[in-house]
Amino acid sequence: MGSMFSDRISDVPRSFIREILKVAIDESVISFAGGLPNRDLFPVEQLRTATNKLFDTAGKDILQYSESEGYLGLREWIAARYKDKKGIVVDPKNILITTGSQQGLDLLGKTFLNEGDSVILEKPGYLGAIQAFSVYKSRFFQIPVDADGIDLGLLEKIVQNQTAKLFYTVPNFQNPSGITYSEQNRRRIAEILHQREIILIEDDPYGELRFLGTDQPSFYSYMPENTILLGSFSKIIVPSFRIGWIVANDAVMEKLLVAKQASDLHTNYFCQRIIHQYLADNDIDEHIELIRQAYGKQREAMINAIEEYFPPGTKFTQPEGGMFLWVTLPEGLSALKVFERAIEHKVAFVPGDPFYVNETNVNTMRLNFSCVDAENIRIGIARLGKVLKDMI
Amino acid sequence: MGSMFSDRISDVPRSFIREILKVAIDESVISFAGGLPNRDLFPVEQLRTATNKLFDTAGKDILQYSESEGYLGLREWIAARYKDKKGIVVDPKNILITTGSQQGLDLLGKTFLNEGDSVILEKPGYLGAIQAFSVYKSRFFQIPVDADGIDLGLLEKIVQNQTAKLFYTVPNFQNPSGITYSEQNRRRIAEILHQREIILIEDDPYGELRFLGTDQPSFYSYMPENTILLGSFSKIIVPSFRIGWIVANDAVMEKLLVAKQASDLHTNYFCQRIIHQYLADNDIDEHIELIRQAYGKQREAMINAIEEYFPPGTKFTQPEGGMFLWVTLPEGLSALKVFERAIEHKVAFVPGDPFYVNETNVNTMRLNFSCVDAENIRIGIARLGKVLKDMI
Repeated sequence: MGSMFSDRISDVPRSFIREILKVAIDESVISFAGGLPNRDLFPVEQLRTATNKLFDTAGKDILQYSESEGYLGLREWIAARYKDKKGIVVDPKNILITTGSQQGLDLLGKTFLNEGDSVILEKPGYLGAIQAFSVYKSRFFQIPVDADGIDLGLLEKIVQNQTAKLFYTVPNFQNPSGITYSEQNRRRIAEILHQREIILIEDDPYGELRFLGTDQPSFYSYMPENTILLGSFSKIIVPSFRIGWIVANDAVMEKLLVAKQASDLHTNYFCQRIIHQYLADNDIDEHIELIRQAYGKQREAMINAIEEYFPPGTKFTQPEGGMFLWVTLPEGLSALKVFERAIEHKVAFVPGDPFYVNETNVNTMRLNFSCVDAENIRIGIARLGKVLKDMI
Repeated sequence: MGSMFSDRISDVPRSFIREILKVAIDESVISFAGGLPNRDLFPVEQLRTATNKLFDTAGKDILQYSESEGYLGLREWIAARYKDKKGIVVDPKNILITTGSQQGLDLLGKTFLNEGDSVILEKPGYLGAIQAFSVYKSRFFQIPVDADGIDLGLLEKIVQNQTAKLFYTVPNFQNPSGITYSEQNRRRIAEILHQREIILIEDDPYGELRFLGTDQPSFYSYMPENTILLGSFSKIIVPSFRIGWIVANDAVMEKLLVAKQASDLHTNYFCQRIIHQYLADNDIDEHIELIRQAYGKQREAMINAIEEYFPPGTKFTQPEGGMFLWVTLPEGLSALKVFERAIEHKVAFVPGDPFYVNETNVNTMRLNFSCVDAENIRIGIARLGKVLKDMI
């Protein structure tokens, strides 16, 4: 039946991370591989209360089919949040509720990408975006990130010599590198892209999870017409509900809505209402503060342990928020090979490979610090440090 | 920004039905337009009990990210149901949980269709399938349905002269026509398709809702390797959860899983668990029997009223289950024009147009009988009959 399949599906990289997670499921393995929020911080009781309140007051409503755009009350809350936290004015009609941020990427691919169209990505870049856009047979340019953002010279060169349609970025606590774009870097990117009418997709699942430093402006404040925002409740409230959103201008929204209808009619309405009820009855900032404090401590534990246990010549990023940091091993050391040895020593991480479009056996790796407590972070990093020292 | 969009998105018909539902939202309108299950039959209390039980016993688990394949317990239940009700043997590893059946269609389009590939559809055919496949720029052949299934001669002709990849069918209580394929029609279709290795997609959201006659075999029992099954909990338990599934062989499943990961990572896990708990603690057959009885009565009320109020020369189908029947008006009468007048007289339906790929101003319409009680069906059909008589 092989020849029956579409050309596109053979071009999509299978999720490397999901395969790795299967290896790391053994409970004796300390895993820095996942991208999961810490389950101990889920607001279980508050979500239960919200759910029961809805069953009391709107039992039939919350179970019926609903609108493709998403629940208006929730879109209003999101609009108000942008105003409060970012000073951005967004009309609820420009917000589409999606089945997680991942669906936002798929809908944008459907809406914008013809075969061979180019997308500019960060290097390393978010694996889920590479997968989603690959389905539409796009070409990729990857621009290296450093501590302040992307390489602006390379961006200018690409923009001048190529016709890219989209620029995809996770500007806050980037997945996988953990870095955050500086204000200057953002401003200059907006100037460069604006001249060429390239659309910038700002994916910001971690933006609220800052435990150090100060918030930076959204690209939307520099170029609202050419910026599409992606957001998610997965990292600040609950991931299993699969509730995210897209913000886009009227013309884009009209197309996205067609794509949404064709893709799954509408996002789970029951869970949209639960999130909305939870937000109405609880102080989300208080809840987010708990997450920030926990992740901040775990990040510190990880950095301290890396400094103590990793061999000299290892570099790593210093994230101000989010869930990941990025390690660059001494030249010539393959993270994939390290991974094989690490699993034997009961510690897991994600080798850098899937975050690059056309490179393998890279010497980088992603470490997640949101899911493991400080004590186990120390034990796990010590194990990994031993493996690295043995291999050098 | 118009030229920025992908070619594919401009080819997708916007959901006509969703536009119509907006017109019909006025509460004084009796609407036969929707495709909604009857909300009075939702098992609200049972779902609440299931949800609370899960919050008690698995509060953190049900909120975390989960596997792309879907919850194994739910896939096992579905496999067992196929065995019990259809005599079909399906391994849970060949079941993928989707974000509603609509996502099943999108994933199949992603996995199979290159630009220009052909799909055979029923005429009239399910609008959601036309939308989903249009995204992948497929071509369509529509084969007329009658009371027993499709026109077999035309199918043979198409299969001999064209290279179709997929045949999409809703063989039980078809949307929109309400007809059911006879056993002979099914068997012959399977023979014709099997010779050419065309994949048959059997979409069966209404199969459990039979109130007259006897169940017919699934296409899967004639050609398991070349049949893909789509199913859904939307019509038998709850639509807002958006939980459906695909059954496919190993080779197809591997590709579908890649498509699923790229599309939305995984289906809402919280709601998969609730459905599973509900099924474990309740007698689903008892619940389905309530729906069957209610819809059966409403279908009878609609047919009686049509016979009484519609003008001579009007034809209509006699569904043995499901939610819809299909009316053919006297030649030359445009259902779209009837719709405009009907709305003025406070009654709504779906004109046949969106169920055809390349025809407009057709003389057919879809009537839904699941959402309106017998008394209001009578009143609504009387209004519609008056409009029709005035227009002839």
